[in-house]
Amino acid sequence: MKKLINATDDILAESLRGFAAAHADIVELSEEPRFVMRKGGAVKGKVALISGGGSGHEPLHTGFVGKGMLDAACPGQIFTSPTPDQMIAAAQAVDGGAGVLWIVKNYSGDVMNFEMVSEFHDGNSATVLTNDDVAVESSTHSQGRRGVAATVIVEKIVGAAAEQGADLAACKALGDRVNSASGTMGVALTSCIVPAAGKPTFDLGEGEIEMGVGIHGEPGRRREALKPADAIVGEFVETILADLKPASGEEVLVLVNGMGGTPLMELYLVYDAVARQCAEHGLKIERSLVGNYCTSLEMQGCSVTITKLDDEMKSLWDAPVRTAALNWGNG
Amino acid sequence: MKKLINATDDILAESLRGFAAAHADIVELSEEPRFVMRKGGAVKGKVALISGGGSGHEPLHTGFVGKGMLDAACPGQIFTSPTPDQMIAAAQAVDGGAGVLWIVKNYSGDVMNFEMVSEFHDGNSATVLTNDDVAVESSTHSQGRRGVAATVIVEKIVGAAAEQGADLAACKALGDRVNSASGTMGVALTSCIVPAAGKPTFDLGEGEIEMGVGIHGEPGRRREALKPADAIVGEFVETILADLKPASGEEVLVLVNGMGGTPLMELYLVYDAVARQCAEHGLKIERSLVGNYCTSLEMQGCSVTITKLDDEMKSLWDAPVRTAALNWGNG
Repeated sequence: MKKLINATDDILAESLRGFAAAHADIVELSEEPRFVMRKGGAVKGKVALISGGGSGHEPLHTGFVGKGMLDAACPGQIFTSPTPDQMIAAAQAVDGGAGVLWIVKNYSGDVMNFEMVSEFHDGNSATVLTNDDVAVESSTHSQGRRGVAATVIVEKIVGAAAEQGADLAACKALGDRVNSASGTMGVALTSCIVPAAGKPTFDLGEGEIEMGVGIHGEPGRRREALKPADAIVGEFVETILADLKPASGEEVLVLVNGMGGTPLMELYLVYDAVARQCAEHGLKIERSLVGNYCTSLEMQGCSVTITKLDDEMKSLWDAPVRTAALNWGNG
Repeated sequence: MKKLINATDDILAESLRGFAAAHADIVELSEEPRFVMRKGGAVKGKVALISGGGSGHEPLHTGFVGKGMLDAACPGQIFTSPTPDQMIAAAQAVDGGAGVLWIVKNYSGDVMNFEMVSEFHDGNSATVLTNDDVAVESSTHSQGRRGVAATVIVEKIVGAAAEQGADLAACKALGDRVNSASGTMGVALTSCIVPAAGKPTFDLGEGEIEMGVGIHGEPGRRREALKPADAIVGEFVETILADLKPASGEEVLVLVNGMGGTPLMELYLVYDAVARQCAEHGLKIERSLVGNYCTSLEMQGCSVTITKLDDEMKSLWDAPVRTAALNWGNG
């Protein structure tokens, strides 16, 4: 295992310290219990958005903490759910009196822990559970579809709504709507290595890919021989559109997401393929995002997310955001 | 070779089309000859900044085209200099009458081609040659030190000055000053694979790293066994500071740059190590940037750049920029 680390047990703590120091104008770090919050903490009268999950998916979720997006993120150990004490402390720190919206990716560990916390949390709260991965119906760590890269889109759009004063019920309804309007599918060219395991999560033969892989290396639909980007994207787009059933001429947002080890050059090539194929399906790409946003350590591969847009979602997507990983519209 | 591509010959064209489509609000693409320019082209009365070089280092340079940074970028084939016809066409498209500043990384092919162009270009021009890599004195593709990640810092700071009306001589002097105030050193944990070659550029044994590697996989100082991040960073910081000779208490900018295949989690861990060691050396980190900015396809590894800052450079660093890869300060 070759990684830029000191000791396996210190990876998360050191990485979070580096993150917090590099973005001290945007976030504050609590080390015990561990969470990252928007600088200044609670915003009075605003719904607080809190997400979290296992680490190793950076910039998800810490990189999306800041004005216009998340109020706090609770990072667990790599690919491991955060614990309830982290979530409770985060909620106490950022609840501004208008309630807490938990944004949770659909994995059994996360769901169990966030459910436990919502019982303990002394205040209004609601949960948006993301489950955008159309590749498989259930998986190693999830009952039902997995929550993957569309979580970024949910966090951005609901974050903008909360910033503009939407109440808890409206934020919850909007988050569910964005999640339902989104579908994602991914592919792995290589496995990642979880440091505590020290070896690849799965083995792919020379020239083999895993179609429909999960962001922890969970199995997808099948292994097959490497095929051209156009064919990979073709299967993604067909599968996602079969689920979303968009109308012809419908406006969409496309996210081409790198798994962590994929060159940007390839991600833009994939975006070119998605753009051509969306045009063939009569879809209008109105917004896009290309880069590493919901990763799996150093895994090579990518996912494609398509979200059906309405005018409200477009406007909220464009609203100002200032986080480590997304930053626009700020004077 | 596993890559998300269609055919090797089409990688650059398809990737650039995807890039231009994803950022149609910021850039325009010319396919023949090939260059990317700021949307709208020439800005009357402003010095035009043009860079370029082999592809495979994305987001360098196309990702830095836009208001407040580059006016145009000329991408060559992967790890291959662009040709003079690209540069001439780019200059004709973006020269606003105040001259052209070429920003060139110090590699023999790039230097030769850009020199040829500056003779042909019908107008004022000057060149800033970056050579910030302190690892080795000369290398496979360069006479003298290699130009690497500090090129991003030169492009940002000089781009801001040009936007504010600095003339060609002032831009040239500023670019040289930023380059001289900067030092970089990198490490590879793995090689990248150039698609046309189809095999790794170099072979590293299990548990081996290349200290001082170049961004095309050129040899560095030595191969050695993998060591802790703190020790790698220790050698980087010592070597860079021996070159820059900063005063105690001096203000610096730190760039921790991923080589393309390195998880963000590791890059922030490296930043934490740099921050601790800069503090031990009595340096004040006033600005920072952590992410993939000057890459080597899917290489795993990173580089650290330290730039001595003065008040003018800080202010220009903070000035608004709107490009695909850097975006801040825009209302």
